[in-house]
Amino acid sequence: MDPRVHEHAEILVDWSARIEAGDNVVLSVAEGAHDLAVAVAEAVGERGANLVATYDSEELARAYLRGHDGEFDSNPAHELALVENADVYLRLGGGRNTTATADVPSPTRQAYRRARTEIREARMDTDWVSTVHPTRSLAQQAGMSFEAYQEFVYDAILRDWESLAEEMAQLKTVLDEGSEVHIEKSETDLWLSIENRTAVNSAASVVYDSHNLPSGEVFTAPADAEGTVFFDIPMTVDATRLRDVQLTFESGEVVDYTAEQGEAVLREILETDAGARRLGELGIGMNRGIDRVTDNILFDEKMGETVHLAVGRAYDACLPEGESGNQSAVHTDLITDMSEESTLSVDGEVIQRDGTFRWESGFAGGT
Amino acid sequence: MDPRVHEHAEILVDWSARIEAGDNVVLSVAEGAHDLAVAVAEAVGERGANLVATYDSEELARAYLRGHDGEFDSNPAHELALVENADVYLRLGGGRNTTATADVPSPTRQAYRRARTEIREARMDTDWVSTVHPTRSLAQQAGMSFEAYQEFVYDAILRDWESLAEEMAQLKTVLDEGSEVHIEKSETDLWLSIENRTAVNSAASVVYDSHNLPSGEVFTAPADAEGTVFFDIPMTVDATRLRDVQLTFESGEVVDYTAEQGEAVLREILETDAGARRLGELGIGMNRGIDRVTDNILFDEKMGETVHLAVGRAYDACLPEGESGNQSAVHTDLITDMSEESTLSVDGEVIQRDGTFRWESGFAGGT
Repeated sequence: MDPRVHEHAEILVDWSARIEAGDNVVLSVAEGAHDLAVAVAEAVGERGANLVATYDSEELARAYLRGHDGEFDSNPAHELALVENADVYLRLGGGRNTTATADVPSPTRQAYRRARTEIREARMDTDWVSTVHPTRSLAQQAGMSFEAYQEFVYDAILRDWESLAEEMAQLKTVLDEGSEVHIEKSETDLWLSIENRTAVNSAASVVYDSHNLPSGEVFTAPADAEGTVFFDIPMTVDATRLRDVQLTFESGEVVDYTAEQGEAVLREILETDAGARRLGELGIGMNRGIDRVTDNILFDEKMGETVHLAVGRAYDACLPEGESGNQSAVHTDLITDMSEESTLSVDGEVIQRDGTFRWESGFAGGT
Repeated sequence: MDPRVHEHAEILVDWSARIEAGDNVVLSVAEGAHDLAVAVAEAVGERGANLVATYDSEELARAYLRGHDGEFDSNPAHELALVENADVYLRLGGGRNTTATADVPSPTRQAYRRARTEIREARMDTDWVSTVHPTRSLAQQAGMSFEAYQEFVYDAILRDWESLAEEMAQLKTVLDEGSEVHIEKSETDLWLSIENRTAVNSAASVVYDSHNLPSGEVFTAPADAEGTVFFDIPMTVDATRLRDVQLTFESGEVVDYTAEQGEAVLREILETDAGARRLGELGIGMNRGIDRVTDNILFDEKMGETVHLAVGRAYDACLPEGESGNQSAVHTDLITDMSEESTLSVDGEVIQRDGTFRWESGFAGGT
């Protein structure tokens, strides 16, 4: 086995999920993630934790969903009990076809999602981590050769996370102390209230309330939004291409939306429930190890010199004690490039201009 | 997809497991069983049942077990809760390498088994069914080409189960009314008490207390055993070849054992716990659709003109109400050929001679 697979497993188990003896671990394995699953199983065994592996095949999900009439039982007891009794939930992505579920009707998809709110909440109460094993399908999605894609993935994952966490702490401080974020660029003039919200220094470890490997972003949960934002980085959502999305917010809610491509899927997402029209996340990508778009949200949203916003569910870690934040069955990220003719300001002060933060050399300053 | 895969899935879901709307189904998927899992998922969705798929990869199990120090937590809560809340447990065998776990130390294997008694019991309280998807690895184990092996498997599975159930009912009646079974053949002279035990007409459906697909055997749980039995049909247990096993019983317990090949594994099985030295099952193969040994217990033990005995756990269905029968963490079947110079008698009357039952044409009779 490629030694990088074992290194990946070690970082996942030790740095990210902090697995210890006696932990009840659920390992969710995508169709193409077998090799990583084997390496993770070995590491989980070495730590003395307990393992259940689930098979999260998209072809299986497609067949089940297409067979079903769409009236789903809510939160089936066996699956809920599995997750409620888990300490750690590791999701190993890496399918064999990124469009495997393209012919599942969206209403079915949404009904299934809505029926599983408690299961999702229970999963988020665990020390969960999502990562991805490089597959040919993901390489194809990225427009890359398999070998080059493997290099890309391991460059993003096998790094010095402690050192990146220190860099990101500076932005967290700015956001924690700030009240209002202003994003300006072409076709974008957006104001976000972040008062009393706590930013997460997402350093790919549950001890940082960070649940993605790789990570490398600082994110918070906006309380309010006003204005318009244009997302120029394309992506694939629910097996459908989304390109050049524009959202307009009034009092925190999407009141107008367009997409050059994929508008129907965008509409379905926004109509899932009431919370799907409000923001759950403002994220600022700071992982310059991720140097290209690969059409995979796990990587794209962490890319340096980008900002992303998610409609839907907010993460509890960003909210004041006792406040529930935005609730939704969805959490869909959309990304905008900040590398040129853009500013990100907090309380009237420019924090990032044309991709460069104020603590970096070459920062042009200004207000 | 091969239409036989869909037929297999339909028989599994409808005839065998009797899945209905609202049932909580666990689908255990071996590494090579993906196609069958997809077809079963579709059928489970069509019935309106709820699905969790587990990934039962032997390579993953090997890595976990070899990584672990061998002191396993007993019955981890997440896995136990999953199974306790399941109505149906479908096990889809079909690996990619029948010797995938050959280098897991036996003490580790046994310790893992012992630590999971409650999980195993909970699984057996569900409407569980074990079946197998034909793989190249299983074809190789059988010494067959892949295409011929597929034919073999589907010939055994895609059949008229109702009609076979009627044939088998005759033997069930004999065993239910009988007290003592006597098996005589070369190197074999074994007496089994079956008084007050109930035989199972194993017609591949949970409504018959039959949990294998294919099935086609009548089995019961001996209360006592005396004498010697020779198993001339070779098999592979725990990735090790077992050949020409001879067991000698006194007062129901194995007091002497030999094996031409695999004696170490036989010893480990018999030493797992106290119940591993006593019989849990007497089974009589009646599926003449299975016409050759393929070194896979699911098929071999159902073969017409054979008898098998299992050391270890007895099935509750065979026991009088309130009686617990033989308890053990193991259940290992061993098979003997009854087609030549053999008799199976019940209460002094020959029921089968040289493979032919007394209700079949060509039966030679006698006592």
